[in-house]
Amino acid sequence: MKYSVDGKHLHQRLKDLGKLGRDENGVLSRLEANPGEKEGRDQVVAWMKELDLKVAIDKIGNIFGIWETEENKDQAPVMVGSHIDSVMNAGIYDGCYGVLGGIEVIRTLKEGGYKSPRPLVVGAFTNEEGVRYQPDMLGSLVYVGGLELDEALNTVGIDGSKLGEELEKIGYAGPEEPGFIKPYAYVELHVEQGPVLDHEGYTIGAVDSVQGISWQKITIEGEANHAGTTPTRLRVDAGLAAAKVNTFLRERADKSNHTTVATVGSIEFQPNLVNVIPSKARFTVDIRNSNLEKFLEEGKALKLYLKELEDSDMVKISTESLAQFDPVPFDEDVILRVEKAAENRGLKYRRITSGAGHDAQMLARICPTAMIFAPSIKGISHNPNEATDEKDLTAGANVLLDVVMDLAESN
Amino acid sequence: MKYSVDGKHLHQRLKDLGKLGRDENGVLSRLEANPGEKEGRDQVVAWMKELDLKVAIDKIGNIFGIWETEENKDQAPVMVGSHIDSVMNAGIYDGCYGVLGGIEVIRTLKEGGYKSPRPLVVGAFTNEEGVRYQPDMLGSLVYVGGLELDEALNTVGIDGSKLGEELEKIGYAGPEEPGFIKPYAYVELHVEQGPVLDHEGYTIGAVDSVQGISWQKITIEGEANHAGTTPTRLRVDAGLAAAKVNTFLRERADKSNHTTVATVGSIEFQPNLVNVIPSKARFTVDIRNSNLEKFLEEGKALKLYLKELEDSDMVKISTESLAQFDPVPFDEDVILRVEKAAENRGLKYRRITSGAGHDAQMLARICPTAMIFAPSIKGISHNPNEATDEKDLTAGANVLLDVVMDLAESN
Repeated sequence: MKYSVDGKHLHQRLKDLGKLGRDENGVLSRLEANPGEKEGRDQVVAWMKELDLKVAIDKIGNIFGIWETEENKDQAPVMVGSHIDSVMNAGIYDGCYGVLGGIEVIRTLKEGGYKSPRPLVVGAFTNEEGVRYQPDMLGSLVYVGGLELDEALNTVGIDGSKLGEELEKIGYAGPEEPGFIKPYAYVELHVEQGPVLDHEGYTIGAVDSVQGISWQKITIEGEANHAGTTPTRLRVDAGLAAAKVNTFLRERADKSNHTTVATVGSIEFQPNLVNVIPSKARFTVDIRNSNLEKFLEEGKALKLYLKELEDSDMVKISTESLAQFDPVPFDEDVILRVEKAAENRGLKYRRITSGAGHDAQMLARICPTAMIFAPSIKGISHNPNEATDEKDLTAGANVLLDVVMDLAESN
Repeated sequence: MKYSVDGKHLHQRLKDLGKLGRDENGVLSRLEANPGEKEGRDQVVAWMKELDLKVAIDKIGNIFGIWETEENKDQAPVMVGSHIDSVMNAGIYDGCYGVLGGIEVIRTLKEGGYKSPRPLVVGAFTNEEGVRYQPDMLGSLVYVGGLELDEALNTVGIDGSKLGEELEKIGYAGPEEPGFIKPYAYVELHVEQGPVLDHEGYTIGAVDSVQGISWQKITIEGEANHAGTTPTRLRVDAGLAAAKVNTFLRERADKSNHTTVATVGSIEFQPNLVNVIPSKARFTVDIRNSNLEKFLEEGKALKLYLKELEDSDMVKISTESLAQFDPVPFDEDVILRVEKAAENRGLKYRRITSGAGHDAQMLARICPTAMIFAPSIKGISHNPNEATDEKDLTAGANVLLDVVMDLAESN
């Protein structure tokens, strides 16, 4: 390979950025537009300027570092990026890896004398985590036209603040119109935030999609009766019916060839007494699949099963949708380039679906998009113990570099 | 039949007794030795005296109305009875039916000129419900020698009171030693407190046993992980494992030929969030069976299943016993007499097991014992809506009368 990133340098920068936005106890909470996030933004902009990138800020606060030349400035640029805002009590890799990895790639190519046929852009999108302001991935959503700018700026946060005013305050309400750069393609480097790559010994995940998510609250009504004097055949046990839904969902997941995951994460019985058959069970169901058809099929299968359960168990069942997002498939051509790059570097790679949301799923609306995952040790994320080995961070950034060059050289 | 009770009279007395011990809102809560329960005791004693029964009170407050003659006073008496204390917000039949039914039987026989070969005794046992003082069935337990009198009198109630002092206060700390009457047999008439007889159209339940009860609290420990990014094969889902225990218990109950009932009545997940796989599930299990061998078998089967589940689902499981009472079988000879009496009266009857505890299970330790159940409408009990049709109340009391005569005439 002609070019490779300096992984140690990249890792040091992740650690340096990770020092910004901590409280007196050392807890990292770089929530959107808070003082710590401003410090982080300033640092990122400083690193972009150090490379003589053109720094542009749009009206929703997204930051872009643009490397363009007289020769390539009329071409659609290759964009990489992610976010630097964090959850409360966060680790240092989620999001930052994509932004600093992108800067590292440009630094490596620029300092190595690479003549890119296309401009290269690294973006840091506003409010990806959705902790201080809702929805999450807000900056990239506005960027692709999925949410009106005014509405986004007027979003009221958990602390009563308005996003637009807070961006003004920290100096990141920029002049550019969101969407002002039309990328040729977008590639996001990120830590997996799940255990698959680490557990299975892969270095690279070629992310082919973001899973569709369905959240439902299900209420099953039975009949409260004495646990001793009510024979089995006269029971209408809401808790048992809920248990059946849980095992049904696992059976579906087992049959789905590893594509569906389903979780009953919370539950409540009434009256919730040792010697009374539950009259009511309320629980949540989280179903995910990255294929739209299969995703919708799972929803239908559950609906049908609940109908059957009403008959077989004599219960009444009602469902309430808490969230429903269709899956986002990434671009096959870009995915193949990720796999090719990993192959050429001799890295163990596999296709993987993303269980969490990312800015890439928004960018996919306007250009060919894919993601590169690096392994999260034990799958830990949104936690100070979030970690990725330096050699894996390096490998992921090198794959990003190769894919960026590959795309920059494509027509 | 030569003798039959006056069912209307019996029902009126149940209603009259049911007026005593109500608060200003009409709520019936005749907790042991409270002012309302004293009123109830006084009324029962008055009705016993009205029949010229010898009234004896023992040291734990059990009341006995004794009908004996010069001719039969050396024979072991036939005892009937139940209790007149109640739960909070009670109905008027639970317990009272057995006491007033017994008085009605003696009234009918005495006024009808019956010459009983054995003395007849009707008892009202102290603190059957176990609401104010623990344990339940305390009076009959002391009577049969299962609990030391001193210990019982020193029992501290939910209001901090001492049972012995409260019995003194209401004038029911009697002079007799508990166990002073050795019955030839004991028969208890009671409402079913379950739905079986009503649902299946039976008038009489010939109760052959009181179920054994096992209460356990089970804690399953899994691993909290992201509901989206954790593939099925890497999940350690404590909630799913809990669901499997619930369906396993129902399968066992289904296979038990209607002898086992099992209930998961209460449950709790941690962290109990829609998008996190439960790291912990805590739930209760209530298992009942009236056959000792089968009862112990169910306990062993669950234990084995939990062991298997630890292996198959990679969870850690711990169990805590909250209560464990072996089943009490009743006396086959007395049960047959109940069936014969029902048969002779042309009443639809069936054998039934008692899911709830009764004084009869204590008396069974010292003499041949059985119970007669009358149908509870819709199985409702421990509730102001507790009800039994007057004709069913009458039928049950007539069966009691016939069984009492049958036993009185036996050697």
